[in-house]
Amino acid sequence: MINKNNHLNLDQFLLFALQEDIGTGDVTTDCCVPKDAISKGFFKAKEPGIICGLDIAERVFQLLDPQVKITQKVKDGDSVNTGDIIAEIEGPSRSILTGERTALNIMQHMSAVATRTAQAVRTIQGTNAKIVDTRKILPGFRVLDKYAVRCGGGFNHRFNLSDGVLIKDNHIAAAGGIQNAITLAKENCPQTLKIEVEAESLEQVKQAVAAGADIIMLDNMTPEQMAEAVKLISGRARTEASGNMGERDLKAVAETGVDFISIGALTHSVKALDISLKFK
Amino acid sequence: MINKNNHLNLDQFLLFALQEDIGTGDVTTDCCVPKDAISKGFFKAKEPGIICGLDIAERVFQLLDPQVKITQKVKDGDSVNTGDIIAEIEGPSRSILTGERTALNIMQHMSAVATRTAQAVRTIQGTNAKIVDTRKILPGFRVLDKYAVRCGGGFNHRFNLSDGVLIKDNHIAAAGGIQNAITLAKENCPQTLKIEVEAESLEQVKQAVAAGADIIMLDNMTPEQMAEAVKLISGRARTEASGNMGERDLKAVAETGVDFISIGALTHSVKALDISLKFK
Amino acid sequence: MINKNNHLNLDQFLLFALQEDIGTGDVTTDCCVPKDAISKGFFKAKEPGIICGLDIAERVFQLLDPQVKITQKVKDGDSVNTGDIIAEIEGPSRSILTGERTALNIMQHMSAVATRTAQAVRTIQGTNAKIVDTRKILPGFRVLDKYAVRCGGGFNHRFNLSDGVLIKDNHIAAAGGIQNAITLAKENCPQTLKIEVEAESLEQVKQAVAAGADIIMLDNMTPEQMAEAVKLISGRARTEASGNMGERDLKAVAETGVDFISIGALTHSVKALDISLKFK
Amino acid sequence: MINKNNHLNLDQFLLFALQEDIGTGDVTTDCCVPKDAISKGFFKAKEPGIICGLDIAERVFQLLDPQVKITQKVKDGDSVNTGDIIAEIEGPSRSILTGERTALNIMQHMSAVATRTAQAVRTIQGTNAKIVDTRKILPGFRVLDKYAVRCGGGFNHRFNLSDGVLIKDNHIAAAGGIQNAITLAKENCPQTLKIEVEAESLEQVKQAVAAGADIIMLDNMTPEQMAEAVKLISGRARTEASGNMGERDLKAVAETGVDFISIGALTHSVKALDISLKFK
Amino acid sequence: MINKNNHLNLDQFLLFALQEDIGTGDVTTDCCVPKDAISKGFFKAKEPGIICGLDIAERVFQLLDPQVKITQKVKDGDSVNTGDIIAEIEGPSRSILTGERTALNIMQHMSAVATRTAQAVRTIQGTNAKIVDTRKILPGFRVLDKYAVRCGGGFNHRFNLSDGVLIKDNHIAAAGGIQNAITLAKENCPQTLKIEVEAESLEQVKQAVAAGADIIMLDNMTPEQMAEAVKLISGRARTEASGNMGERDLKAVAETGVDFISIGALTHSVKALDISLKFK
Amino acid sequence: MINKNNHLNLDQFLLFALQEDIGTGDVTTDCCVPKDAISKGFFKAKEPGIICGLDIAERVFQLLDPQVKITQKVKDGDSVNTGDIIAEIEGPSRSILTGERTALNIMQHMSAVATRTAQAVRTIQGTNAKIVDTRKILPGFRVLDKYAVRCGGGFNHRFNLSDGVLIKDNHIAAAGGIQNAITLAKENCPQTLKIEVEAESLEQVKQAVAAGADIIMLDNMTPEQMAEAVKLISGRARTEASGNMGERDLKAVAETGVDFISIGALTHSVKALDISLKFK
Repeated sequence: MINKNNHLNLDQFLLFALQEDIGTGDVTTDCCVPKDAISKGFFKAKEPGIICGLDIAERVFQLLDPQVKITQKVKDGDSVNTGDIIAEIEGPSRSILTGERTALNIMQHMSAVATRTAQAVRTIQGTNAKIVDTRKILPGFRVLDKYAVRCGGGFNHRFNLSDGVLIKDNHIAAAGGIQNAITLAKENCPQTLKIEVEAESLEQVKQAVAAGADIIMLDNMTPEQMAEAVKLISGRARTEASGNMGERDLKAVAETGVDFISIGALTHSVKALDISLKFK
Repeated sequence: MINKNNHLNLDQFLLFALQEDIGTGDVTTDCCVPKDAISKGFFKAKEPGIICGLDIAERVFQLLDPQVKITQKVKDGDSVNTGDIIAEIEGPSRSILTGERTALNIMQHMSAVATRTAQAVRTIQGTNAKIVDTRKILPGFRVLDKYAVRCGGGFNHRFNLSDGVLIKDNHIAAAGGIQNAITLAKENCPQTLKIEVEAESLEQVKQAVAAGADIIMLDNMTPEQMAEAVKLISGRARTEASGNMGERDLKAVAETGVDFISIGALTHSVKALDISLKFK
Repeated sequence: MINKNNHLNLDQFLLFALQEDIGTGDVTTDCCVPKDAISKGFFKAKEPGIICGLDIAERVFQLLDPQVKITQKVKDGDSVNTGDIIAEIEGPSRSILTGERTALNIMQHMSAVATRTAQAVRTIQGTNAKIVDTRKILPGFRVLDKYAVRCGGGFNHRFNLSDGVLIKDNHIAAAGGIQNAITLAKENCPQTLKIEVEAESLEQVKQAVAAGADIIMLDNMTPEQMAEAVKLISGRARTEASGNMGERDLKAVAETGVDFISIGALTHSVKALDISLKFK
Repeated sequence: MINKNNHLNLDQFLLFALQEDIGTGDVTTDCCVPKDAISKGFFKAKEPGIICGLDIAERVFQLLDPQVKITQKVKDGDSVNTGDIIAEIEGPSRSILTGERTALNIMQHMSAVATRTAQAVRTIQGTNAKIVDTRKILPGFRVLDKYAVRCGGGFNHRFNLSDGVLIKDNHIAAAGGIQNAITLAKENCPQTLKIEVEAESLEQVKQAVAAGADIIMLDNMTPEQMAEAVKLISGRARTEASGNMGERDLKAVAETGVDFISIGALTHSVKALDISLKFK
Repeated sequence: MINKNNHLNLDQFLLFALQEDIGTGDVTTDCCVPKDAISKGFFKAKEPGIICGLDIAERVFQLLDPQVKITQKVKDGDSVNTGDIIAEIEGPSRSILTGERTALNIMQHMSAVATRTAQAVRTIQGTNAKIVDTRKILPGFRVLDKYAVRCGGGFNHRFNLSDGVLIKDNHIAAAGGIQNAITLAKENCPQTLKIEVEAESLEQVKQAVAAGADIIMLDNMTPEQMAEAVKLISGRARTEASGNMGERDLKAVAETGVDFISIGALTHSVKALDISLKFK
Repeated sequence: MINKNNHLNLDQFLLFALQEDIGTGDVTTDCCVPKDAISKGFFKAKEPGIICGLDIAERVFQLLDPQVKITQKVKDGDSVNTGDIIAEIEGPSRSILTGERTALNIMQHMSAVATRTAQAVRTIQGTNAKIVDTRKILPGFRVLDKYAVRCGGGFNHRFNLSDGVLIKDNHIAAAGGIQNAITLAKENCPQTLKIEVEAESLEQVKQAVAAGADIIMLDNMTPEQMAEAVKLISGRARTEASGNMGERDLKAVAETGVDFISIGALTHSVKALDISLKFK
């Protein structure tokens, strides 16, 4: 389950999602379905994958109508096959019908992220690299998608611009060089933050090491270049492979000895996991 | 451009997106980049597709810092190729760096939706069918993704639960049959709404026609079944093909004579269009 | 009861209403009434009418202080006479006193709308016409007043600008004629919406029918003109009588054969139903 | 113009009102009216009354689309006759059409309040009494309606529960008597507030005077009783006539010598002033 | 306990405070502490003072995680010594750790205000003067700090600009003199408000009395001047001593016979009371 | 100036502050001061200190009324003496009077923080230690007070719970020891964060070093213990002195060789800097 701490923000997001979908009222349900009808149903996987977002789906219904009860049959992070029952649902028919799409939209997306992450993790099994996410996440999903990445076996990079220093090419250009940028960051940033810097060449890697970077991002390099960079750095900084990693040979990348592989596609380009809600 | 009318809601969403990404401040930029530095840069397409969301990206920067100026080189709905300059940007370096990811996350997603829609539209060219979207859209993107679908040449289905009656299988179950459901909807729903009903068999199609449905959704049917349904309905209602259409042979479906083909994958399962922002 | 679905938005409105009336605190109650005092009281009708808003009043107190309990003696839509007890209330004296005005302001207005609607409905009894509301509703009351109209025996027109196409005189002027406007609407609007158009003359009625309007609003016509229009349309579209209907002879209008009579005065010009809250 | 100070809250209310009416978009306007069409029109009085809310209407359009320009031909508080032009409007046709109803709903209500107040003020002309409002005002309109009362020549009673002590019958019951209630209020309430108490009999009036009330509300008394109360009080407190004053003989009440006459009907039971917006 | 009435606004403030401190999640706690760990602990006073804010601290945890239970060992307004246990806490370790700082920040500040007020009240014991607060309070703390002042034995001046008329030097300058300002206020302000005016000299005191001020603020006067002013006013208005009272000899001021002594430092310049939360 | 990035959140806070203070309207100003009066005035220091918050004060007035113009005579971080003019102000008298207290409350507090920080920085001049803040900051002031600390010559510790790992005594208790806590944090926290741990004894310092902590907080130690700890750590981690530092001999602490001295009192226990606004 996502930490209670985040529940606070989550409720605002889920209420917004419900309001956006419901508008001034669910006319179909309100016109066709008796006020006091009760239904039972189940969420079913229609393709294999890693389930994620069950607690969120439960919270969606809790916010809409506390009388709707969900019984989870698997839990976040579990692997399912086509036809598996994910959860049972029971309660006022109107409320189930009205909340269905909001709950499914979120759960299908989060499950997609977890599933995509698990594929990447499997690919590099046996190496020392960790799969990490990025900030390429749609608004509202920062905490949810990062949780889904963890459910899929991945790890989290920084959450936003305030909890990590990452000096990229444009920063370097604006700051007048790698060394200058790192020195300024070390002097001024909160003491709890490490300094990560993007390097596009071995020359830049050398500058980054010399300036005392904590982490060096190896951007758009070939596995050969990465391996050379890792060797050159020789433990003086941690390394992160980056640059269209969603379409790269992750095994080859991982075997270069990098510490992290960050993949934007884990969150910005996933295929929703097919899940349906059917009444009994 | 998305209508001014929607600007009102949009600003809240964009401010939320900026705040989510910025947190308590962009430490990297604030530490490394001089307060009064000015930069010029450009947004560049790194793969071919349909651009969408330029006005939104512009609005993101306007909300963050009105001194950032964007000059659009193409406009929403235009087709671009790898390497094409989409827009130029100029202004305070700090503001450009801080707003970059928020603007790109949204624009890359909207362009992906437009691109995916355009593919579907091209596939069925020459038929009378229209490609339409669904409510399978992530929270916050309801208006944006539906606009992107129009930019890609598609049309919009209902926006939310309050501006369209769509009686689905679970409604039918809860209402006690198609006829009952349609009769109740006709009596009670606002007079400006049409009645659409989901049919999973020719038998249900017959019932829907008899009960006076305005639109009949042909769900999970083969092209042959669809063709038969269209013939059976014979103009007494409009028809919509539905059911995992993102992975179906759209040409075959369109040639059955259906009026609409609704595709959830247009919005829930897209690959972000690769766009970068580089400083000169 | 108003649908649970709308509860989500409702709470925000009711909290706002409480905060607006309470300001920084109810100084009278907090100074004069002991913290642990408990009171019993009742809501009493001080004039005859249709009661509406009891659930809302109950929700107001629930949001303010869950210890306040209300027992409804009649229910929304019931007719009451002077002196009838509507509900009993019991709980912390302070909370009852502080929430009283907010609850009454809303319930008195909603009851006024229901009462006014019921009068109109009674007047046209025996005809086939339905009394419907408009968008002439004060901010925040869109869902509440439309619910009150239904409690009074009326029906709802569209809720807002996004769930109904209604082409009025100014649209026609801006679009360059009725036919053009209808054609554009048919091509571009979501498929779930019908097309309604305003006609101020029989000539316009003819154009509307020719262009395929689903509903034709007969605006500011005499009963004779309306009857002629209905005959001319001959079932090819539904008809709505409109134009200062709050001060018209509704019986005469209804007998022309129109399907709907829309009355702005149902919601924008009502006399609050007199209801009081007295401690035992 | 309403004070700038209140603009802050006002914008939130007006944005809410626009969003409530626009929903996901004004489908009619967006489908039928060309994006770049420009229109000119005017607001016209369709019945005589006092105009109020012109600045608010202007602000509605400013929030929706700053390109819409309004030229006021009369100003808030002015008297108009049927057919008078109130204001001219010019700008993007779409924006005018989309904002029209929100602007009119508010302006018609505020003008109704001002008109109703002016009637009451005229009735008691020549006496020393002042017409004042109450807290019987719909949510969101507290500041707007109180401004409208001033535009109609009336004065404002307290705005909410925190800026005035008003001890009513239920408070007296809960506090154990008038004297006790007044003593507690004097001791504990912020020093800037006066103490007003409701009296339903001459006996209660005496108690109130003895306990040192600043203002005594004469509730549901006949003019004769009021006159006697005023004499009895003899300047030791100010007096307010109250109790269904919307249906009383105000002249007779005012001539009893009371200082204030408070009328809930000024704000809770008004007939919207008929104003239209027509394109040229 | 702060009135339920204010709970409504309070929750928004407390949620904001939690969100501001938690950001995207409490990484330390979430990484180091097992999800299902349960802890017991206690809040302990680390210096003597008046405790205030226990209900608020309890509410903070209730909003964060209802499983956290607090048992108050003293109550708001009680005096504590170094080492005293203020409250016990028990519940999920993660939630206690995450909410700790938010609860303490608020409680330590409110206790500081109560403690500072109690000192002032003690100093003037035996005189007829009351210690009152001002509007010199940080945003969000208006209701909380004013409650803390009452817990410390003080009284509240007006809460904000709308519940009290206080004509200060700049108002007098802008209005063209004391008499003019008072006359305008008497004519136009809501009838429930008294008129207070600032006087910096005996000459101004005379003008204020003549114009009928209800309360006269004696600003920056010596005790001798105050005594003379009180004598001159002779009961025709109440008096308030003001002007850097946080650093004045309060005893001497109180003995001049003034009714109120207002001290900004009660709220704007306090030393947080040292309170710790320790796990058993 | 605080970064534009934070402006987004700032506006919400400042609007809230204005609304809290203005309530339903500034009755004094609105009654006494002519609508079109224009005033000039100046902000003056009434005691020596470091000014901070001028941009914020300017923003307060911009949000309230853009016609109010402020000309800064000194800038944030500048030192002022009693009587120095800080800024000039000119504009509508009403708006200046209404916004005055909100602007002053914030600016006086921020200046107090900057002044208090500057004192601490001066005290340790000549050592290598840096003065840093804590999370002991009142809600809403997280970004403002941290900016004020920088204006006073200090540095910022983490902003909130999500941008720094700080393992304190209660975490250690709940995690089962220092080593376990550090290991878990290293494995699970975002890679951009350093690990800081609190040590209350030299034994704990040793454990922290052994477990690979990046920063070790020396909590409540004597200068002698700190010196020993610094020696023991010998550059393998950075060090932070903590524990009631607001009342400690900072010079002695700094000379032990610690890297940082964190002082809660910089923000939670300051005396508002006396600043006044006077009309010319």
